[in-house]
Amino acid sequence: MSTVTPAVQRLIELALEEDLGRGDVTSEALVPPSREALGEVLVKAPGVLAGLRVAAAVFGRVDPALDWEPLLEDGARVAPGDVAARVRGRARSILAAERTALNFLQRLSGTATLAARYAAAIEGTGARLVDTRKTTPGWRWLEKMAVRAGGADNHRLDLAGGVLVKDNHLALSAQDIAGAVRAARAYAPHSLRIEIEVVDLDGVRAALEAGADVILLDNMPVEELRRAVEWVDGRALLEASGGITLETIRAVAETGVDLISCGALTHSAPALDISLEIIP
Amino acid sequence: MSTVTPAVQRLIELALEEDLGRGDVTSEALVPPSREALGEVLVKAPGVLAGLRVAAAVFGRVDPALDWEPLLEDGARVAPGDVAARVRGRARSILAAERTALNFLQRLSGTATLAARYAAAIEGTGARLVDTRKTTPGWRWLEKMAVRAGGADNHRLDLAGGVLVKDNHLALSAQDIAGAVRAARAYAPHSLRIEIEVVDLDGVRAALEAGADVILLDNMPVEELRRAVEWVDGRALLEASGGITLETIRAVAETGVDLISCGALTHSAPALDISLEIIP
Amino acid sequence: MSTVTPAVQRLIELALEEDLGRGDVTSEALVPPSREALGEVLVKAPGVLAGLRVAAAVFGRVDPALDWEPLLEDGARVAPGDVAARVRGRARSILAAERTALNFLQRLSGTATLAARYAAAIEGTGARLVDTRKTTPGWRWLEKMAVRAGGADNHRLDLAGGVLVKDNHLALSAQDIAGAVRAARAYAPHSLRIEIEVVDLDGVRAALEAGADVILLDNMPVEELRRAVEWVDGRALLEASGGITLETIRAVAETGVDLISCGALTHSAPALDISLEIIP
Amino acid sequence: MSTVTPAVQRLIELALEEDLGRGDVTSEALVPPSREALGEVLVKAPGVLAGLRVAAAVFGRVDPALDWEPLLEDGARVAPGDVAARVRGRARSILAAERTALNFLQRLSGTATLAARYAAAIEGTGARLVDTRKTTPGWRWLEKMAVRAGGADNHRLDLAGGVLVKDNHLALSAQDIAGAVRAARAYAPHSLRIEIEVVDLDGVRAALEAGADVILLDNMPVEELRRAVEWVDGRALLEASGGITLETIRAVAETGVDLISCGALTHSAPALDISLEIIP
Amino acid sequence: MSTVTPAVQRLIELALEEDLGRGDVTSEALVPPSREALGEVLVKAPGVLAGLRVAAAVFGRVDPALDWEPLLEDGARVAPGDVAARVRGRARSILAAERTALNFLQRLSGTATLAARYAAAIEGTGARLVDTRKTTPGWRWLEKMAVRAGGADNHRLDLAGGVLVKDNHLALSAQDIAGAVRAARAYAPHSLRIEIEVVDLDGVRAALEAGADVILLDNMPVEELRRAVEWVDGRALLEASGGITLETIRAVAETGVDLISCGALTHSAPALDISLEIIP
Amino acid sequence: MSTVTPAVQRLIELALEEDLGRGDVTSEALVPPSREALGEVLVKAPGVLAGLRVAAAVFGRVDPALDWEPLLEDGARVAPGDVAARVRGRARSILAAERTALNFLQRLSGTATLAARYAAAIEGTGARLVDTRKTTPGWRWLEKMAVRAGGADNHRLDLAGGVLVKDNHLALSAQDIAGAVRAARAYAPHSLRIEIEVVDLDGVRAALEAGADVILLDNMPVEELRRAVEWVDGRALLEASGGITLETIRAVAETGVDLISCGALTHSAPALDISLEIIP
Repeated sequence: MSTVTPAVQRLIELALEEDLGRGDVTSEALVPPSREALGEVLVKAPGVLAGLRVAAAVFGRVDPALDWEPLLEDGARVAPGDVAARVRGRARSILAAERTALNFLQRLSGTATLAARYAAAIEGTGARLVDTRKTTPGWRWLEKMAVRAGGADNHRLDLAGGVLVKDNHLALSAQDIAGAVRAARAYAPHSLRIEIEVVDLDGVRAALEAGADVILLDNMPVEELRRAVEWVDGRALLEASGGITLETIRAVAETGVDLISCGALTHSAPALDISLEIIP
Repeated sequence: MSTVTPAVQRLIELALEEDLGRGDVTSEALVPPSREALGEVLVKAPGVLAGLRVAAAVFGRVDPALDWEPLLEDGARVAPGDVAARVRGRARSILAAERTALNFLQRLSGTATLAARYAAAIEGTGARLVDTRKTTPGWRWLEKMAVRAGGADNHRLDLAGGVLVKDNHLALSAQDIAGAVRAARAYAPHSLRIEIEVVDLDGVRAALEAGADVILLDNMPVEELRRAVEWVDGRALLEASGGITLETIRAVAETGVDLISCGALTHSAPALDISLEIIP
Repeated sequence: MSTVTPAVQRLIELALEEDLGRGDVTSEALVPPSREALGEVLVKAPGVLAGLRVAAAVFGRVDPALDWEPLLEDGARVAPGDVAARVRGRARSILAAERTALNFLQRLSGTATLAARYAAAIEGTGARLVDTRKTTPGWRWLEKMAVRAGGADNHRLDLAGGVLVKDNHLALSAQDIAGAVRAARAYAPHSLRIEIEVVDLDGVRAALEAGADVILLDNMPVEELRRAVEWVDGRALLEASGGITLETIRAVAETGVDLISCGALTHSAPALDISLEIIP
Repeated sequence: MSTVTPAVQRLIELALEEDLGRGDVTSEALVPPSREALGEVLVKAPGVLAGLRVAAAVFGRVDPALDWEPLLEDGARVAPGDVAARVRGRARSILAAERTALNFLQRLSGTATLAARYAAAIEGTGARLVDTRKTTPGWRWLEKMAVRAGGADNHRLDLAGGVLVKDNHLALSAQDIAGAVRAARAYAPHSLRIEIEVVDLDGVRAALEAGADVILLDNMPVEELRRAVEWVDGRALLEASGGITLETIRAVAETGVDLISCGALTHSAPALDISLEIIP
Repeated sequence: MSTVTPAVQRLIELALEEDLGRGDVTSEALVPPSREALGEVLVKAPGVLAGLRVAAAVFGRVDPALDWEPLLEDGARVAPGDVAARVRGRARSILAAERTALNFLQRLSGTATLAARYAAAIEGTGARLVDTRKTTPGWRWLEKMAVRAGGADNHRLDLAGGVLVKDNHLALSAQDIAGAVRAARAYAPHSLRIEIEVVDLDGVRAALEAGADVILLDNMPVEELRRAVEWVDGRALLEASGGITLETIRAVAETGVDLISCGALTHSAPALDISLEIIP
Repeated sequence: MSTVTPAVQRLIELALEEDLGRGDVTSEALVPPSREALGEVLVKAPGVLAGLRVAAAVFGRVDPALDWEPLLEDGARVAPGDVAARVRGRARSILAAERTALNFLQRLSGTATLAARYAAAIEGTGARLVDTRKTTPGWRWLEKMAVRAGGADNHRLDLAGGVLVKDNHLALSAQDIAGAVRAARAYAPHSLRIEIEVVDLDGVRAALEAGADVILLDNMPVEELRRAVEWVDGRALLEASGGITLETIRAVAETGVDLISCGALTHSAPALDISLEIIP
């Protein structure tokens, strides 16, 4: 269950249906039904693996008789030539599942790889790299796990898994920061911390006085981040957010913020090149 | 139906469930249920729009009473500051749907934007840019439409929508190129052309003699592509594939090939920056 | 969306399918298709309403042409004779949806009513009454909202919406309380507080030293609860749990604990008597 | 299939998704993935078991590698300390499924237990205790089986599984009792008996003359029930219904009615206390 | 709801997905998106209509903006040239839905037409023509309604909607007819009649003595049917079954049996020729 | 996967739910749960088998412990008395799945049998018999495979699997044949051939000049078909369509057309008589 929840299973069904719901005319024409084969999941670029269990589930859904043997695990650092897994069984089944399994694996490994690169950039600072809700619709849980495989951490998993008061909430509630924190505290389950977004040091002060647990510093310059860290001095967690890139993240981390969130991990990670080599 | 097929609707359900299936604790705490608002879908980077109808469907699924007014259409070239659409109604509903709608829109517009850049690079040559089956699982149809919105064309939509004989099929069928083309022709619906992958000029000749309708030239150098074009001389369609980048695509196109396929359009397009500005 | 999420919609489909998926043979035999009627949702016992929007959705799914007019809202205190809503339209449709709509309404109002009784019992103390994860499978979100309608609060909504370290986790992780709190803090999204279950005052001390945000006091006698409150003195939230009844809850609340959780709200609430009076 | 029909499977999916669709953050933080454990399903209150196969299906859906060993069967009379089943395997999987499996088991056993108490109250009379359609939406089939596990019988399973003409049908059809019975007989499949609801002895007479197979005596006093039994003298089945309680049911049964229906069995049964003891 | 239950809606989704889930390449290439059209559902062979509401639901699912105007109703006797309905709106939507809507309509009308022919053949006799469970998987409810549209009646709708003891049940239960009737009576909801299959007059006698409500006479010659009718003399319903054809059904009906069941109505009805004429 | 795609699995779920979603009251009453049996799938009429894997999946879905042993394969020519498969295991499970499994098998074998009869009628001519999109909604893929089992071929599988320009497209696009072929060629994936429908020889000429790959000759008399064949002389594929019967098909085939399409294969095939003999 840890990976293939009912919702992930439904995504796998959608994916198989869209690609081979009407059969695989080429394989049916050419490959004898009884033909067996071995496929090797071959890494072709350096990176970090994620999604192996989903890939396994894809092969298993296409043909439960396929034998899937993982050689590596999610989170493994890989180099070109590494074999991540092997799959044995009916050749037609392997060909039918190949593209869908790889599409999952390449995208999730791409996310893990990008997360690892960002995480490496802030190594040794105390900052924790976290993702956002800017994930691929239908893929939330999978991408959150891929971010972890890459060595980063998760922000809230859904709208119920954390309170985050943004400018829109303030504007629409006609409350000030203090009122908003109070209202959120009163309404939210006690299992959740109260986080609030601010854009400058005045906001930081107001949020702190209001008793916010976490303060999101939105698009603030490095110098201002540093001043916020000094001023807050551990009385709340500080999260830097907005326009974080591989070039800027280290400087942000060195300001002493506790958390840095980065949407690119999930919305703009290029796929990791992985293929399936079939050995007849 | 043209966009929101039953399968796309199921993907939207998955996406809403994963983000707000347990409610939106922040908005519930702060925004009065009766509060109304206007949201503007604001473009923040240059590109090409795609996915507007899916975004509309997301808002409509969250709250059928929301009023969605599109100002632009899929395929529109946009610049920062452009407003793509407006949505009016209950503020809670707009906030609840916002992230999911944007996640669809940003990713699909990212794909359309990348397709447009590749397409621009080969403008004026006779070559046609096409996508591949390397799409996001669950998103096949949406991404194929985004590629079209960007001005490129589609390769086969699924394993039943075209015959493409690859090296694996040959190896597993124990047939040579001639036998494979014949077997595919005999088996496939007559509505499909027969395409076969080759890696060199000998393969091109064999495929042509076997009567292939389309020949996929896999990872062949530009010089060899040119010779294939000359030799075939219009007797079959030629598709160049493998490692196509923005830097190399023009040279490939100028060899005279009919088609160039590129997986990056769908597996590695960064998101286009689009946000929702809420006007209380 | 605030109530009828995609998952609730799927529950409604299951409910309609199981009762009238093969038609309503009695109504088909007797009631002319064109016959119109008015139905009144009539309360027959004192309590608190919950589930009106689900009931509306049931009628709407059976026949979108039915006209549903709510006269009261979730959370309303009701007495026998109160009319909660009216529904007008094709008589066959009203009869077909009646039982399913009432089954939702009676059960959810039963939960709201029980929550209100427990909440009334601790009024004036500072304690907050919360539910548990002992909900009807498939009904989590609906029952959590019913608890709120009754004037109580929610504990975490799902296993991802809060950290709660129980004895089983300790036993299976081979960690002591300090190690467990540290491990949970390191792993969990920063949006979540860390809660840990203890059974005595030693546990309370260890949890507090370990930096737990919330301490669950499991089945501890009132006297011990009071000592825990004194000792902790606001440095962590304290939640009393285990065998809470209407008779005992006030004494528990008066110890000064911050939270009291009670599974009976959702697992043992009797239905509230509500019927549909049809006026031909 | 006898228990886990496709619809029950869909309910299980909803239940798992709502609780652990976004993972189990506490177990992930603390319990090593390879850790194994044994869980015992421990009864903590006297009653009758029901739902063991659903509980098994929940564990199996979370992790097919778990080993479920039932020690008792649905319908077993249990006492505190009885172990109903054991489950062995990955500790994380057991913890993840625990709450959902117990939520099914506790509720269904609660229904079976209440049914058994009512059934015991009329033992030795000729009356048959039956349930109603006042079931938990989504749970119809499960609760009907739980009622049987408790030793009672089922009324019709759905609107197509029996004809039951109520006052509303008469009012909306503008037919008298004789006309209604005739119309129902003409329309309904011949596999169904015709039952009609009446409120007094005049109604009984009319129903009998009309040829009804079963007559539902709605909220009639015990004395009147007795007279109906005498008058009908076996020419139709008689069902007593309305406000039946544990206190009143024996007197009702002793009137000689054939059937007594009771909604409380399914709409107001408190959960049976059952827990899962984990043995590391 | 009377026709488009949740299960029928799921069948419609399957049907649309399988035909146009990947778009309608021909219409997209040729028909401008804004083009409007009118379509007429034109009957091309004599018969009985059924399925109009499903066809409407298909058009509505493809494009809710289409305007569907039924001119006839299910059960209407039609002749070539009759127009059953009109649909107006976006031409692409009409073309996309056309084939699926017609496939439903043609098949269901085919069933209604065949039922009407069989029913006509026994007109004036007292026998009632009923269908069987030999329906198209996924279509049970739709075909049962089509049989009614054709003027025939329904046998039980599913395995829970009637008791029918066959030879296999006897063999597997090691009971004789009397024991079987008694066991079924004890177990089944009282809303169901007890029917039992016999193959000769001895069986008829045994079934009658056992108190069966309905006796199915399996593949018995006309002469024997007549004797069974005489012998039973109204003490139970008699159903003739097995190898009924249009040629033989009248003779069977004239024996005086109450019911004649015929699987061909649903398993072998040829489609009724119906087309959609598009008026640009 | 080759047969039981996710969509087919959903159809199986619908089919089981509609027949035994509320249990099998007769078997529950009579057959002991532990009783084992053997069932033989017995052919009772001459024909061609199709659907064996779906039947197997039905039994497997009802009870994974059943042991299914196929003795024949799809495509096998069968005679009365042939045993197609055996199934062993719990008698209740076999009885529960029996009707649904047979309903699939009888219908699909009926289609295969009719396809084989049509195919036999044109044996020795060069023509290829193909099906149409006039399939049972929800059954597209299954029926297409049944047609192949019968020895015929498939036309396009869905609206995306081939371009077929009909008169409606021309009328709605305001293009002539040449313009339509050009537009289709420009829009459609290059994997698809362009087919266009014509009604006379003028149409044939225009289509050929426009470069159509396939020309559908709609309802043209045999004499005209012959002239079309001569005139086209292999420059395009020719498909005859419209009103093809077993009586007329040979004459059509002998004109030399390449393809003959016939809707009756899927919309009007009578079921093949197949039963399940239970051996206690």
